[in-house]
Amino acid sequence: MATEMSHTNVSQRDTADSSYPPLPPTSSSRHLRMRTNTAEIDSTIIHPGSVKINVKGAFIVDEDSESPNERPPNGGCYDTKDIRLPNHTAVVSHIAVDIGGSLAKLVYFSREPHSREPGGRLNFINFETDRIDDCISFMEQLKVKQQELNGSNPGALCVMATGGGAYKYYDKIRDVLGVDVLREDEMECLIIGLDFFITEIPREVFTYSETDPMHFEDPHSNIYPYLLVNIGSGVSMIKVSGPREYQRVGGTSLGGGTLWGLLSLLTGAKTFDQMLGMAERGDNAKVDMLVGDIYGTDYGKIGLKSTTIASSFGKVFRIKQEAEHQAEASGGLPNGDAESPSPHINSSEEPSKPKDEPPFDAADISRSLLYAISNNIGQIAYLQSEKHSLSTIYFGGSFIRGHTQTMNTLSYAIKFWSNGEKNAYFLRHEGFLGAVGAFLKRQPRNWGRRGSLEEGGASEFEARAEVRASAPDYDRGASYPSC
Amino acid sequence: MATEMSHTNVSQRDTADSSYPPLPPTSSSRHLRMRTNTAEIDSTIIHPGSVKINVKGAFIVDEDSESPNERPPNGGCYDTKDIRLPNHTAVVSHIAVDIGGSLAKLVYFSREPHSREPGGRLNFINFETDRIDDCISFMEQLKVKQQELNGSNPGALCVMATGGGAYKYYDKIRDVLGVDVLREDEMECLIIGLDFFITEIPREVFTYSETDPMHFEDPHSNIYPYLLVNIGSGVSMIKVSGPREYQRVGGTSLGGGTLWGLLSLLTGAKTFDQMLGMAERGDNAKVDMLVGDIYGTDYGKIGLKSTTIASSFGKVFRIKQEAEHQAEASGGLPNGDAESPSPHINSSEEPSKPKDEPPFDAADISRSLLYAISNNIGQIAYLQSEKHSLSTIYFGGSFIRGHTQTMNTLSYAIKFWSNGEKNAYFLRHEGFLGAVGAFLKRQPRNWGRRGSLEEGGASEFEARAEVRASAPDYDRGASYPSC
Repeated sequence: MATEMSHTNVSQRDTADSSYPPLPPTSSSRHLRMRTNTAEIDSTIIHPGSVKINVKGAFIVDEDSESPNERPPNGGCYDTKDIRLPNHTAVVSHIAVDIGGSLAKLVYFSREPHSREPGGRLNFINFETDRIDDCISFMEQLKVKQQELNGSNPGALCVMATGGGAYKYYDKIRDVLGVDVLREDEMECLIIGLDFFITEIPREVFTYSETDPMHFEDPHSNIYPYLLVNIGSGVSMIKVSGPREYQRVGGTSLGGGTLWGLLSLLTGAKTFDQMLGMAERGDNAKVDMLVGDIYGTDYGKIGLKSTTIASSFGKVFRIKQEAEHQAEASGGLPNGDAESPSPHINSSEEPSKPKDEPPFDAADISRSLLYAISNNIGQIAYLQSEKHSLSTIYFGGSFIRGHTQTMNTLSYAIKFWSNGEKNAYFLRHEGFLGAVGAFLKRQPRNWGRRGSLEEGGASEFEARAEVRASAPDYDRGASYPSC
Repeated sequence: MATEMSHTNVSQRDTADSSYPPLPPTSSSRHLRMRTNTAEIDSTIIHPGSVKINVKGAFIVDEDSESPNERPPNGGCYDTKDIRLPNHTAVVSHIAVDIGGSLAKLVYFSREPHSREPGGRLNFINFETDRIDDCISFMEQLKVKQQELNGSNPGALCVMATGGGAYKYYDKIRDVLGVDVLREDEMECLIIGLDFFITEIPREVFTYSETDPMHFEDPHSNIYPYLLVNIGSGVSMIKVSGPREYQRVGGTSLGGGTLWGLLSLLTGAKTFDQMLGMAERGDNAKVDMLVGDIYGTDYGKIGLKSTTIASSFGKVFRIKQEAEHQAEASGGLPNGDAESPSPHINSSEEPSKPKDEPPFDAADISRSLLYAISNNIGQIAYLQSEKHSLSTIYFGGSFIRGHTQTMNTLSYAIKFWSNGEKNAYFLRHEGFLGAVGAFLKRQPRNWGRRGSLEEGGASEFEARAEVRASAPDYDRGASYPSC
């Protein structure tokens, strides 16, 4: 069962401190800190090290109006709601980062700045992996503030790192920050993070449909087995049978990186959100070959509607050829020009279009590719769920970005293929499963199950966690810090 | 069992008749024709109409040296070996066409021109669906020659049509040719054609591996159940449990049309073969994000090698951004240029490259996309075969085109996912399953099983076929011609 829900919508991020990015509080808010008291020990789960977290009453901060002063640090991007931890008052001396192929996702705790509110919040920020130096600089700022905050020795900050970048950038992070870096297994972090969100955070997990875009699921504890489909640059599909019982059953290389890569080539878009915005405006039927284009009608016998996509981008080759033939016929094509790459795509950003351009619009292309990638992931996820007898499918990863078209396509694919028998679940912190998992992993495993403990049903959980916590971790990095 | 195999390699297409495209013989070869005699009746299976075909001793004509005079008709393309029917002497008054989203595939019978060899051959030719008028003109030529050949009345030619275009172009074909057109269901034709190839044609079906690129399977009759994966513009996956017992279990819109469409936009290539040629030269690691790019090493724990593709095109966004930043920094990017679509792709056809172009090569892009599409189809095919407990997977459709990289990728995907337990089978007439099925469908169903009949084991087959032949066909076109 979930912890007691204390769902207060905070309508505005507390931005009195203009030194954004929001960092752990400076000495001005030190009065809020206190050493852990007996009551707090009762309501926290003790880490084998020194970190203590209290998630009682955790909730997502809904900011209806963002402060115009709020701006992300150099190269960083806040696009995910904070999670308030109103009952956590003890020191948090670690941060967690999940460095994927395209994005580095960072989670850190901060007190409520200039506020008399107790507790603090989990902050979520991401950086392009390409700009990992910005990310490390930001972690350095966190370290400085952390030291100030904690009065601890240099090196007391602990960085929990996961994702491929935890290996690739291990030396760099350790050397620049001068702190110990714990490497955590990517898949394990993903499921620890997801388990936490499912079991503990109200208004986090939802199903999507056009009529009910965000139908929240109450936190609950009976969650296994399930399939996690994590869509980052590539896609991993993980069968989860129980706490830390998981298997990567498959995946596909057609993921977010494919969409961003191809659309950056085809549309000239510079950001993911620009691409998603175009996809919303586009009409995929301009480039996709529909069943109706081939049959002139439905292919009713096998249940294919005329609007079903038979071939993604299936119209392009033909239209492009026709346009080139026409251009040749009218002498409009300079000698040799047809041999060079000529996408002939009209960017929607361009005010005027040459008259002889073929009618490919960047928005149509964006929508087609978004559909193709999302549908494909949906079908493979469904087939994997069938193979492994899993009826619950969670979609995580930074590809989704709360984009309704993406979620609608994934949801529809699961509904379609399973004849309505399976559900696709989404998360508001979809991109941060791994980072949150890394943030939590050094805690006893059932840190996030405080609620269960309080209700007296989790003694077994805790015992099991203690046993596991004392066992060596097979994928731990070489150094084992003191945090 | 297969018919008796009379495998004589004919090293050269008989091209004494320079009036290519190869058409049914004119009066000059009429001496070869004869009316069906009693013996021939014994060795043929009687169509409910008047067409009789004898497949005894059928074999694929391996042309080691093509005649330089051989050229396809306007807009058409012969890229598939003929099948010799040395024992067929009776009149064939029908042709078959399978009109898909991108290609129209035509199968027709012709006698051996200017030859004293008995029998004739099945000819295979395809046209771009876009140039359906060329295809219809060619059929018209066949009709004229056919009339000459058969001395039959105008309209005696019968066109068996399948694929979506059988519906879309139904009126057009009927009106232009002035003949009856029988529409046949696409899926049914695919499996009838495939069953024929598997059971009757030696050196038709093969497995592919790099060390043994064409390992032929002997024709055999115990073929069910199997999965047919037909890759045209889109992909259909059909579970076949027995003769005419089939179900379209799935498919994907990421098929040949997607490859041709995207590559025509991204590389400027004009033909499929040009794209495949580039793919052979390319290095996908230049654009794909590999596991090693993310981890700096293998992700051994879950069995992902550093060379595994984590994200198709996953490097592109980053490289393109870097290049744009550099161009901006050096003032190399004219104002506003970055806003317009700028694929920055070097066509391999171009002799010189501007120095500040980002390093995307058309060949690398082609290889990456070919891998992505083929891998994806392979994985979905495997998952469907698992869901439906099928261990044999046939890959058909015009996407494959005998291209070794494509077959290698599909084969590898099936081997990889099934831990070597399943095999991918290919066909030399992979693109013509539907057309051959349409050519055969109006025969009793087990026309192609003549061998079984002769060996005394097929009386049940024939009986069943007779029953079915007399039953109304649920998807037959409105007209039922006399052919």
